[in-house]
Amino acid sequence: MVVDFSAVGVSMEVLPVCLNHKKGLICGTTGFDREQEQALLRAGEEIPMMKAANTSYVVNVMRKLAGMAAAALGDKCRVEIVEMHSETKLDAPSGTAKELAAEITGASGKTAGEIAIHSVRAGDTPSSHIALLGCMGEMLEISHHAYNWECYARGACDAVVYVMGHGAGLYTMEDVIGL
Amino acid sequence: MVVDFSAVGVSMEVLPVCLNHKKGLICGTTGFDREQEQALLRAGEEIPMMKAANTSYVVNVMRKLAGMAAAALGDKCRVEIVEMHSETKLDAPSGTAKELAAEITGASGKTAGEIAIHSVRAGDTPSSHIALLGCMGEMLEISHHAYNWECYARGACDAVVYVMGHGAGLYTMEDVIGL
Amino acid sequence: MVVDFSAVGVSMEVLPVCLNHKKGLICGTTGFDREQEQALLRAGEEIPMMKAANTSYVVNVMRKLAGMAAAALGDKCRVEIVEMHSETKLDAPSGTAKELAAEITGASGKTAGEIAIHSVRAGDTPSSHIALLGCMGEMLEISHHAYNWECYARGACDAVVYVMGHGAGLYTMEDVIGL
Amino acid sequence: MVVDFSAVGVSMEVLPVCLNHKKGLICGTTGFDREQEQALLRAGEEIPMMKAANTSYVVNVMRKLAGMAAAALGDKCRVEIVEMHSETKLDAPSGTAKELAAEITGASGKTAGEIAIHSVRAGDTPSSHIALLGCMGEMLEISHHAYNWECYARGACDAVVYVMGHGAGLYTMEDVIGL
Repeated sequence: MVVDFSAVGVSMEVLPVCLNHKKGLICGTTGFDREQEQALLRAGEEIPMMKAANTSYVVNVMRKLAGMAAAALGDKCRVEIVEMHSETKLDAPSGTAKELAAEITGASGKTAGEIAIHSVRAGDTPSSHIALLGCMGEMLEISHHAYNWECYARGACDAVVYVMGHGAGLYTMEDVIGL
Repeated sequence: MVVDFSAVGVSMEVLPVCLNHKKGLICGTTGFDREQEQALLRAGEEIPMMKAANTSYVVNVMRKLAGMAAAALGDKCRVEIVEMHSETKLDAPSGTAKELAAEITGASGKTAGEIAIHSVRAGDTPSSHIALLGCMGEMLEISHHAYNWECYARGACDAVVYVMGHGAGLYTMEDVIGL
Repeated sequence: MVVDFSAVGVSMEVLPVCLNHKKGLICGTTGFDREQEQALLRAGEEIPMMKAANTSYVVNVMRKLAGMAAAALGDKCRVEIVEMHSETKLDAPSGTAKELAAEITGASGKTAGEIAIHSVRAGDTPSSHIALLGCMGEMLEISHHAYNWECYARGACDAVVYVMGHGAGLYTMEDVIGL
Repeated sequence: MVVDFSAVGVSMEVLPVCLNHKKGLICGTTGFDREQEQALLRAGEEIPMMKAANTSYVVNVMRKLAGMAAAALGDKCRVEIVEMHSETKLDAPSGTAKELAAEITGASGKTAGEIAIHSVRAGDTPSSHIALLGCMGEMLEISHHAYNWECYARGACDAVVYVMGHGAGLYTMEDVIGL
């Protein structure tokens, strides 16, 4: 089993090594082009394979809950996302905020244009994501706050335990969580 | 169809009227004793009947989500609840906080003793409930904030629409929401 | 004493009436042009005069605190503002958020361009303003939440009591609060 | 200059060493008895001396602001404190929450009994303190969130720079901050 959070070039070299040795691969690297993405997903036919952009167990639960809430509330709510990260973070919105918005649109029929994402960059905030579902006279708020990067490492370890017990196939953090 | 948010004595007089006229009843009153409770639930055999302590659509979604999150995170999290209400509110914790804790214990196997409830009474805060699921290095927070009482009225109206389309039976706000 | 929260045209008619009868004026209207603004301020030479865009006592305290905090933390913090209002509100950012940013820049030497304002429009949130002062490894947050419009009426009443006890002059909500 | 965050016994040995060598002392240790406390404060007659239970710059600003807000709002608000720490923390409420409550009572004339402190112990939350000033129809919230312990180290360094520029005397973090 290989856990690989590195860079596109490195991951592309790790992939054939795993395939040759029939070892599972948990890949947390991001930024692949379409062809590379396909190569990674195809590996699931031969080895246990997981592609996970964010391995925090709780972020994955949070995203799922936000989708469910948006589906249940539908037209009764308007959704906006506030995410906070370090002022040194170069990209905005965060990849996790984009995935959160995608889950919400997919679950609720809202369009991406309806979900504003606000990116706060102040101090060295590790990572916070807040989904605000504003209704008439009330508000539902689903938030995730990380204090450091350990949660990503813990989630990757949970993923390893899960994938170890399974054969060739494509797995996601949602499989690990069992939501 | 009768929507009855009143007092125990009144509701006990409303019930036979509904039964006699074969009219549905949505009862938002609380504080019944066991026998009265049974009488209300038995009515579902003859008329469309809903007993709902809190008809806010969003509070019901929030409670469901908190249960799911606690089930998914299990031993990875410790749950505490903070609820805020007007300083004139006499009881603490709120009924909704107790129901929230019950959902979490039922869904996750945690015991009631493990879930502390903190009741903040400051100003005339209409109603806020916050479930804090603290994990290692990260926190999941599911919150509901009401600004006024309209959300309870709206939920009751949604309940009416739902119950109107159904025959005799026992219904809950979760049926209305379809979670 | 006249308390006037109306429209520019009306307020311009109210002003000479107050001057003629030597009655105090608390003016909560906004949107005056420069000349009208001057006329209002000049009235302070003859009558007790207060121009206050936001008469909530607490919003005024909050703005003062945010300025003090930004002054004390200086380069140690980066400030961003999140404000939440009803999705039917047409303008963004809110006038109060702009005044908050102005207080912070005035007190701290930061430039307006350094202070991002995020306007969340979801549901019918009455009014929330959050100043986030992000530092290294820590965050200071100063928030104001209104549940309804009563706080503006209460503040106006406090202003009346204050101004009643004073002669001709120009007064602000900060005088009323005594910060 | 000695910076000493250790234990009572160690600090009591460090003190005479500083006095003998005429070196400044910044003491962040807590738990001294009355006599030890006096000995430390008396040292200010001979050397630059600072006793600071919490050297986070921002926590000190936050406490000052909360006191000012409570003084300005007076009877218009009721104050409660919510603090969150790791579930492994043994004492509750936190020392910082107690100092916060003391500042508020000192500044506003409220009694300690009027200020409830709620201690949330969930996950390994580094340290959060939230002062809630509930008013009629509105709420003021002043919060501090630490992500790790660095802010205490940074504050101690700022204290060193400040004390280095001063002679014998007793100094506090508030002197360093200049609030």
